[in-house]
Amino acid sequence: MSDELKKGLDGVVVAESSLSDIDGDRGILCYRGYPIEDLAAEASYEEVLYLLWNEELPTETQLQAFEDELREARAVRPGIYDQLRLLADSGERPISALRSSISMLSAEDPGTDASPGDQDAARHMGMRISAKFPTVLAAFDRLRRGKEPVEPRTDLSLAANFLYMLTGSEPDPMHAEIFDKALTLHADHGLNASTFTAMVVGSTLADVYNSVTAAVAALSGPLHGGANQEVMKALLEIDDGPLNATEWTEDLLDAGERIPGWGHRVYNVRDPRAVILEAELERLSERTEDCHWLEYLRDIETHLTEEVGLPERGVAPNVDFFSGAIYYQLGIPVDMFTAIFAMSRSTGWIGHVLEYQQDNKLIRPRGHYVGPEMREFVPIEER
Amino acid sequence: MSDELKKGLDGVVVAESSLSDIDGDRGILCYRGYPIEDLAAEASYEEVLYLLWNEELPTETQLQAFEDELREARAVRPGIYDQLRLLADSGERPISALRSSISMLSAEDPGTDASPGDQDAARHMGMRISAKFPTVLAAFDRLRRGKEPVEPRTDLSLAANFLYMLTGSEPDPMHAEIFDKALTLHADHGLNASTFTAMVVGSTLADVYNSVTAAVAALSGPLHGGANQEVMKALLEIDDGPLNATEWTEDLLDAGERIPGWGHRVYNVRDPRAVILEAELERLSERTEDCHWLEYLRDIETHLTEEVGLPERGVAPNVDFFSGAIYYQLGIPVDMFTAIFAMSRSTGWIGHVLEYQQDNKLIRPRGHYVGPEMREFVPIEER
Repeated sequence: MSDELKKGLDGVVVAESSLSDIDGDRGILCYRGYPIEDLAAEASYEEVLYLLWNEELPTETQLQAFEDELREARAVRPGIYDQLRLLADSGERPISALRSSISMLSAEDPGTDASPGDQDAARHMGMRISAKFPTVLAAFDRLRRGKEPVEPRTDLSLAANFLYMLTGSEPDPMHAEIFDKALTLHADHGLNASTFTAMVVGSTLADVYNSVTAAVAALSGPLHGGANQEVMKALLEIDDGPLNATEWTEDLLDAGERIPGWGHRVYNVRDPRAVILEAELERLSERTEDCHWLEYLRDIETHLTEEVGLPERGVAPNVDFFSGAIYYQLGIPVDMFTAIFAMSRSTGWIGHVLEYQQDNKLIRPRGHYVGPEMREFVPIEER
Repeated sequence: MSDELKKGLDGVVVAESSLSDIDGDRGILCYRGYPIEDLAAEASYEEVLYLLWNEELPTETQLQAFEDELREARAVRPGIYDQLRLLADSGERPISALRSSISMLSAEDPGTDASPGDQDAARHMGMRISAKFPTVLAAFDRLRRGKEPVEPRTDLSLAANFLYMLTGSEPDPMHAEIFDKALTLHADHGLNASTFTAMVVGSTLADVYNSVTAAVAALSGPLHGGANQEVMKALLEIDDGPLNATEWTEDLLDAGERIPGWGHRVYNVRDPRAVILEAELERLSERTEDCHWLEYLRDIETHLTEEVGLPERGVAPNVDFFSGAIYYQLGIPVDMFTAIFAMSRSTGWIGHVLEYQQDNKLIRPRGHYVGPEMREFVPIEER
């Protein structure tokens, strides 16, 4: 037993996993061996979900059964809307409302009565969480805007149904397709802080609602998922303000601030997800005939690359750099972006918990005590 | 960077801490240098709470101000009761209802708008959580029994007020005193799974509600806090069944089962908290003139010690062995015990988050990828 302090657990290997593999030097991300580029281009988000929770991509029959179960589970009981209404009325932030609503969903799931660690029960709880996640999120956003929730449809993909429930009208198929890809790209990414949180909670054999609720809590932090709203806020600031994108970037650098959407603990080169999202943003911008968000982003990147030379120092655009402008053009409110991230990453959270519980060991590290030596108690009147 | 797998993080030191120190070989537990025996005997739970969130025991003036803030924050807005009623009506378990209600409390706390990692804001959020924890828990229990919640009183200690809100009548002072000690004994215990969960979430600079909600989720697991209800269930089974305590113990051992309330990952000798709780249970049993729960426990211990020799093998009674019979005789329903554990341990969760964020580093370990090598995508119709 070593007393060496492993602060942040940097580089400490806590588990074996066959879900996702990241090569940060070459900019490669694979889910179960399949490059993210192929999955984004050729597989639906539901196929990716199946892949991450199982060992292989589904056959047509397997996918049909899987999708049927997911679609049937989309609806929530009316009591959940009452609870969401209370949260909306109190002005709760979407990511916090999501944390509360995922937690509350456990009350209606008979799977929580299964034996601790039961893989089959955990899998079906995971299905129900993934199915209802978009429903509660869209309903919360509508309720806080004074609108009634839109009931889920079972004839749409998960991505299309979410946009439908959010806006009340069936989305442009290209919008649904781009959102589907964005969900795929965010579905898993090794043992990041929220996925690790889900695993620590799952290692106590608490049920899946506990893992997912705790992971939403972790993702909400500004050092983790909370960052993806910052890029869009920056673009809106540029759009509203007197500076052009290059001047805005110079100003931010002069102030010694970090550029949102740049740099990643794992990648030293361009995040492969950013490459795909940039192409999707270009496609979307052509369709909407509105290229100005993309142009801001490219101006920022050109400046940081050609004038500042960040990429040479291993700092490059990450997944957040292009996702915000996509979500914004799909009509998703900026303060929902972190919750959207949670919606897609829940796939990885559940997949890692299922995997870890197959050969479970309670996660309990040590602290190194640095406080006072044993000392004598002094009664309050003598202090 | 080493690829050695540290499964369960057994023995890995993730942080320095000056909150609690455990000597598992000698059965010693200290909070900030004060032996748990002295704190249980001489300090109120509120003093212990102050001690764990600060570096020293409070003076009378400091304690007064601290208690005033805690007492004023006990009430919750009526909307919380509506939410608890919905959870109670759906048959939610107390620990899961607690997870949801702590999560929902964030909506009424302006502290969640503070800058990420703001220590002062975090401290006051912690105060409000600690103050409202007993209120929501007692209200939930009353609502599920068809009774209206009892509003908190500001003239009682935290322990006495909880028992008052639960039962609707002011508790026997000895009952309140024993419950106060039980809260002190459970307030902190190194980097157990729930405390570590709170730290991982806090390391993203998410606000304190996120850490505490996630920690409740972790504590609910049967490998962690979920175990403390098992001892009382065993005693009730003995009380109801044909076997005496010794026979029941023999039967359980013959079936190859673990004895609930025995053994601990950290202690090889009798847990110092069990020593104190046994004495308190004796005192309580004399007052209630009902010694039969204590007798069952002593019969079990005598058998396991004299016939089976567990203590010689480093397996001895832990904190859960005597706590259940105490809570039961204080009138607390058995399925609330894990939530009671959460109520006291929240002190440690918040204390560790405050401490860790003073010199914060995002907790992000690595996984070791053991899945398939990079492979070619196969379209669904060809699978």
